[in-house]
Amino acid sequence: MTPQASLAADAIGTSDRIEVPATRLREQLQAIFTAWDMPAALAETTARLMVAADLRGIDSHGIGMLPLYDELHRAGKLTMAPEITTLRDSPVTALLDAGGGLGHAAGERAMRLAIAKCRAGGLAAVAVRNSNHFGAAGLYALMAAEAGFIGLATSNVWKASVVPTRGRAPVFGTNPIAFAAPARRNPPFCLDMATSTVAIGKLRLAWLDGRALPEGWAVDAEGRPLRDPAEAMAQRLLTPLGCTPETSSHKGYGLAAMVEILSALLSGARVAALDDARDPDPPRYNVGHFFAAIDPAAFREPEAFRDEMDALIDALRASRPADPDSPVLVPGDPETAAEAERGAGGIPVSRRLAAMIREIAAACGAADLMGPADPAGGPKDGKEGP
Amino acid sequence: MTPQASLAADAIGTSDRIEVPATRLREQLQAIFTAWDMPAALAETTARLMVAADLRGIDSHGIGMLPLYDELHRAGKLTMAPEITTLRDSPVTALLDAGGGLGHAAGERAMRLAIAKCRAGGLAAVAVRNSNHFGAAGLYALMAAEAGFIGLATSNVWKASVVPTRGRAPVFGTNPIAFAAPARRNPPFCLDMATSTVAIGKLRLAWLDGRALPEGWAVDAEGRPLRDPAEAMAQRLLTPLGCTPETSSHKGYGLAAMVEILSALLSGARVAALDDARDPDPPRYNVGHFFAAIDPAAFREPEAFRDEMDALIDALRASRPADPDSPVLVPGDPETAAEAERGAGGIPVSRRLAAMIREIAAACGAADLMGPADPAGGPKDGKEGP
Repeated sequence: MTPQASLAADAIGTSDRIEVPATRLREQLQAIFTAWDMPAALAETTARLMVAADLRGIDSHGIGMLPLYDELHRAGKLTMAPEITTLRDSPVTALLDAGGGLGHAAGERAMRLAIAKCRAGGLAAVAVRNSNHFGAAGLYALMAAEAGFIGLATSNVWKASVVPTRGRAPVFGTNPIAFAAPARRNPPFCLDMATSTVAIGKLRLAWLDGRALPEGWAVDAEGRPLRDPAEAMAQRLLTPLGCTPETSSHKGYGLAAMVEILSALLSGARVAALDDARDPDPPRYNVGHFFAAIDPAAFREPEAFRDEMDALIDALRASRPADPDSPVLVPGDPETAAEAERGAGGIPVSRRLAAMIREIAAACGAADLMGPADPAGGPKDGKEGP
Repeated sequence: MTPQASLAADAIGTSDRIEVPATRLREQLQAIFTAWDMPAALAETTARLMVAADLRGIDSHGIGMLPLYDELHRAGKLTMAPEITTLRDSPVTALLDAGGGLGHAAGERAMRLAIAKCRAGGLAAVAVRNSNHFGAAGLYALMAAEAGFIGLATSNVWKASVVPTRGRAPVFGTNPIAFAAPARRNPPFCLDMATSTVAIGKLRLAWLDGRALPEGWAVDAEGRPLRDPAEAMAQRLLTPLGCTPETSSHKGYGLAAMVEILSALLSGARVAALDDARDPDPPRYNVGHFFAAIDPAAFREPEAFRDEMDALIDALRASRPADPDSPVLVPGDPETAAEAERGAGGIPVSRRLAAMIREIAAACGAADLMGPADPAGGPKDGKEGP
């Protein structure tokens, strides 16, 4: 079992999960999106990228997002048939408008465009505005790596949850950075990280598990460390990577600001730190993304680069572990392991989440493809955590 | 007094410092480099960028590096009159060979080239191989911001000191990331950070101060947290940003790997994790750097970008502080404050370091420009810490 799968199993108990094949989950999501009047191609892309996140063990950014997307849909915050348009274009840069829809299709379009421009010019960057949540940032960086390029993907988040060093009010979202680079024998190196110490999902797992939070994950409204998981879930105030001033939280705060500048200020997207006060409930959240691709061949013999990536990955994995039973990992290893396991055996879905998906399907008249209903009857409140 | 200056004063005592005007420090360094047979233009650039780091309060990357550069020089590890050559060149990319010299002049040349290419194409990246320590990464990112562009600068380090998550042996250096973006009314946003929790210099300050290290700064050879500063200085084993697995050290480790890939694998520089075993004492350390510039005008109206940068900087500074006496800062604020103070009043130099500079000048026959010698006679061992 992968670290992620084992963590999830620890938290919710194996008996509370069902395993659903990836194909069926994709079909379920497509059926729902189609019932929401999303055009077929868009529904396919969105479902495929959501399930791709689950396949890689990134449960927080896959089908688990459906209840939130459902909320946005019901609140009229998503354009179901957005036109993705090019606002600016040059040989190595572009700016896209995602048309107010979910970010997956716009993200894929933007990274594909960056890859095409990179193939011609050796380097390219594409920014996106007027988008929304785009799932797992790593998937876009990986697209570049699969094309033989170094890939970078960042996104801002419409809701601020990260409290700056010395502060007490949130100014940025969990603003992820993903960076991938191709090897030859090994799967690509793929770093995919929130710039907060942990994401909200980890607070929820601790809460489900009844564990106190480690100091440094969350703070209260006075900016003091908060260890009670229920209270932390209610406040939703995260620390930047680095936790406290003493252990360099200013670095995580700086990285979150960097992601905000690249994703939102460069593209003209909404900036929570500026707009929450003057326009707290906009008709569209106008999330921004940034994608870049670099062709190693512009700098050196690309096969030498790939060979050295393999050598580095091998050397890191062979690096002496503190505990012989826990080898040193390379960014992307847990996701690759999850992919092998879940591609073969299906994606674990908590019975709570399965019930919510069924409910969402029923509400819009989409087919229920989740398999036999929970024999125990499922949860009463239909909620996945607080 | 800036946070940095106050930290230094806390550690070494104000009476142990002299203040030297920046101009005089530059002349002192130029005299030494000229005596080392460095050509005049190279000596000027190197001295200017070293003192620029001190002016910005980044004492760890300025004149305090001279004793190490002197060691490298005496060991024959530096080319004093390197030819900086262009190995590959395209409209938006280039690869430079620094010729085995110190990295400052090559770094400045590379970022200037990236800026020129960015002016024409909207985006550019330049990698450098066969270099050495280049001082403060932020100075290069700032060059782009001063030209109106977003700037990125990274470097690897020839010596590994950062232990990966789950590991016990160092695999990367402190691999810095610098990112700058221009505003209009405010000085540029400038993040300049090591990807380790702290740099070696902070261990030294704690040691000088007789303070135990906070848990999470350093580890011992078994990968366990180390709190004794003398022991930590001896071992020189740092944690990645994030400190421990529980507080996401895998993110800092991943960022350090990202910097290694961009700076060394892309340029063909030396990779400590691969080469320390097979060639521990190379004739040149072959450090690599990576520089990128992005023109906001390729994405949106550049004046709107600058105005929004001002608004973001203002909003962050106005964000509610946990302690009313410690306002929230923006990356670059401490450095800007130091620059104003030190530009007017001079750069504080510990008497120990002043004595070492005098000794280095005397050894190569350069003029002593450090001012009146220490009336107390200076330290006996001529060493700046352990």
